[in-house]
Amino acid sequence: MNIHIDESRVVAELDRLATFSDGQPPGVTRIVFTPADLGARDYLKERFRDAGLDVREDPVGNTFARWNGAERDLPAIGTGSHTDAIPNSGRFDGTVGVLGGLEAIRALQSAGYRPRRSIELLLFTSEEPTRFGLGCLGSRLLAGVLASEEASSLRDFDGITLEEVRSAAGFRGNLADVRLPQGYYSAFVELHIEQGPSLEREGIALGVVTDIAAPASLRIVIEGEGGHAGAVLMPQRRDALAAAAELILGVEAAALSTGVIDTVATTGICHVFPGAVNSVPSRVKLEIDVRDIEGERRNVVLSLIEQTSQAIAKKRGVKVQSQLLNADSPARCARFIIDALVQSCAKEKYTHKEMISRAYHDSLFMARIAPVGMLFIPCRDGVSHRPDEYSAPESIGDGARVLAHALANLAA
Amino acid sequence: MNIHIDESRVVAELDRLATFSDGQPPGVTRIVFTPADLGARDYLKERFRDAGLDVREDPVGNTFARWNGAERDLPAIGTGSHTDAIPNSGRFDGTVGVLGGLEAIRALQSAGYRPRRSIELLLFTSEEPTRFGLGCLGSRLLAGVLASEEASSLRDFDGITLEEVRSAAGFRGNLADVRLPQGYYSAFVELHIEQGPSLEREGIALGVVTDIAAPASLRIVIEGEGGHAGAVLMPQRRDALAAAAELILGVEAAALSTGVIDTVATTGICHVFPGAVNSVPSRVKLEIDVRDIEGERRNVVLSLIEQTSQAIAKKRGVKVQSQLLNADSPARCARFIIDALVQSCAKEKYTHKEMISRAYHDSLFMARIAPVGMLFIPCRDGVSHRPDEYSAPESIGDGARVLAHALANLAA
Repeated sequence: MNIHIDESRVVAELDRLATFSDGQPPGVTRIVFTPADLGARDYLKERFRDAGLDVREDPVGNTFARWNGAERDLPAIGTGSHTDAIPNSGRFDGTVGVLGGLEAIRALQSAGYRPRRSIELLLFTSEEPTRFGLGCLGSRLLAGVLASEEASSLRDFDGITLEEVRSAAGFRGNLADVRLPQGYYSAFVELHIEQGPSLEREGIALGVVTDIAAPASLRIVIEGEGGHAGAVLMPQRRDALAAAAELILGVEAAALSTGVIDTVATTGICHVFPGAVNSVPSRVKLEIDVRDIEGERRNVVLSLIEQTSQAIAKKRGVKVQSQLLNADSPARCARFIIDALVQSCAKEKYTHKEMISRAYHDSLFMARIAPVGMLFIPCRDGVSHRPDEYSAPESIGDGARVLAHALANLAA
Repeated sequence: MNIHIDESRVVAELDRLATFSDGQPPGVTRIVFTPADLGARDYLKERFRDAGLDVREDPVGNTFARWNGAERDLPAIGTGSHTDAIPNSGRFDGTVGVLGGLEAIRALQSAGYRPRRSIELLLFTSEEPTRFGLGCLGSRLLAGVLASEEASSLRDFDGITLEEVRSAAGFRGNLADVRLPQGYYSAFVELHIEQGPSLEREGIALGVVTDIAAPASLRIVIEGEGGHAGAVLMPQRRDALAAAAELILGVEAAALSTGVIDTVATTGICHVFPGAVNSVPSRVKLEIDVRDIEGERRNVVLSLIEQTSQAIAKKRGVKVQSQLLNADSPARCARFIIDALVQSCAKEKYTHKEMISRAYHDSLFMARIAPVGMLFIPCRDGVSHRPDEYSAPESIGDGARVLAHALANLAA
């Protein structure tokens, strides 16, 4: 089968998608259920319908665009990713998996292919944790990893619940109905940019993922004592930001302490209260991300951070409260999907390597209810979550082409 | 002369003033030129006019309420303070000097006193640095310490200039005209809460200030490299927040290194960009406050912070840019005003002590164009810049009573 991918069409669609954004270009900011996110969804649903796909949305806004197969009752083949974007990030993370997946479907249609199993393109809600502090909201609910009651009561930074926010965005129905049964998909394949430098550095066209690293995140609130920056003398202080500074360095040290390159830990959020130059900080909120491909080693790092927090609390007379927002298990990709992807690479004579995904993806949760696979394309300098994130049109084309072959193979 | 201070009236006025606030009570938030600040000003101007004072405002919003003396051409006696409040602070800082000053004038009027020199009550604009990063905006301009061109181009956190903000708030005219000539006041006396614990701890009714500590503030921007929190491995990182954490601890260490209790340093502001849990921080902005009663010792601390910044920049491969926002000289109070205050305490049989002001006041700048003095009243636990800031009605009454005697003495 001859697969024709229209790279310039996909790039034009990615460019158009990037215009649904808050803040200054070239940075993209598309937080879930903001007007930018909802505008992007409308744009994409139009593209899905233009391709003749049946579109449905579930109560949390996960969007399914289905190309019905000859045998509609068989479990479908899923593909897709997310389109939300953290503040001031790039235009390829997630979006390549949605628009590349759409292009793969359009290429199969043009090639005259008729699938036996249905092929379903997914747009997941809130893969990024920006708004609710928890990533992969949509896929967690699909997989039943997150209870619907727990999801309902999640609050954003303004204290507004997910229930209120989704309802204002027009998504109704019961969150409990989001969950998909085991066997709904016979395979799920996600196309994504690598978000790391190894494919580019080694000059390899495509990465076939074998394992997805296990992420965890912590929210830590430090309560000290505020006061006037001139009048409160140093020995009297219980400065929440000085305590936070020690902890931020402790997080870094905890990651380095494993001696293994696969362990990473990041303090990405630090909110200081009251936040005035002449006021001793009384409260600081930190959010910390810890990852490893070994769940147990990651948990050791979490314990180390907890110990450091308690030591700082004692030493500085501050109160430290920590909350584990999530600590997920690593996922293993299904061998038959890995094989299908490898064969598809061979068919098009692309170089490939099997590799680990250090970043977090909706496939991590889809793995709970379906066999999963992931296909990576290179991105420049390994940069992601930044305005200068970039994947070449050829790479996007390569990814869509191999995905098309794999979908055809899996749906046969 | 028998001075009758109506404590309950002053307390009621302070309570009413506290309602002009953004955010949750009991915290007070009154940032310069917000609707809360403008509402408070309107309320106070009404009170000033009720007392028969002539009210005028200058182009930056400094407000003068004048009780004309018998000899109008003589230099006047000034008193007053500020009414802006940092986020989530208290109701006594600054406001006691304005409403206590008003009460002192009303008490002198009731006592039948007729001043020879005019007595002028001042409300200074933006003593707090919250909005423009520079404290004592109004008094700096009055004293000619801040050039009007420099003031015009100051920007708030949203990037809006002082010119735009003051014009939107209704204050027109040339900032160069704010400056008062030397000799405009023959004395300036500011009533204020101590913002420290010593009067309360020692059971002393009033503090007569001899020196005002020398404050300085720095804005430091750290530029590292962002990226995906999962994909960027630890050895590749140039994390701006980890660098900032080292610097925050360095600021604390620099203050402690003098071995002198009078040195304090505070990092009160820490803004992280992009501020997402799964993104390595690429940029952090810190604002740092350093004070001492010895200008030179304070400058040594500033140099230490600068050295630490450069060492961190080198070690972590980040760029550190630091900007000295202000580094003012300490002020000495005029002996004849100190004496007038001490005599007034004696007249009313109040205990008093001479002391240093560790906090920053408009008097620091008024000292450049006039002899100044300051009178402190105790505040509970030395707490200030917090919602639980508190001074007892009796202490406010004591302060107003002694201020009234001193004004009468100085205006004679």
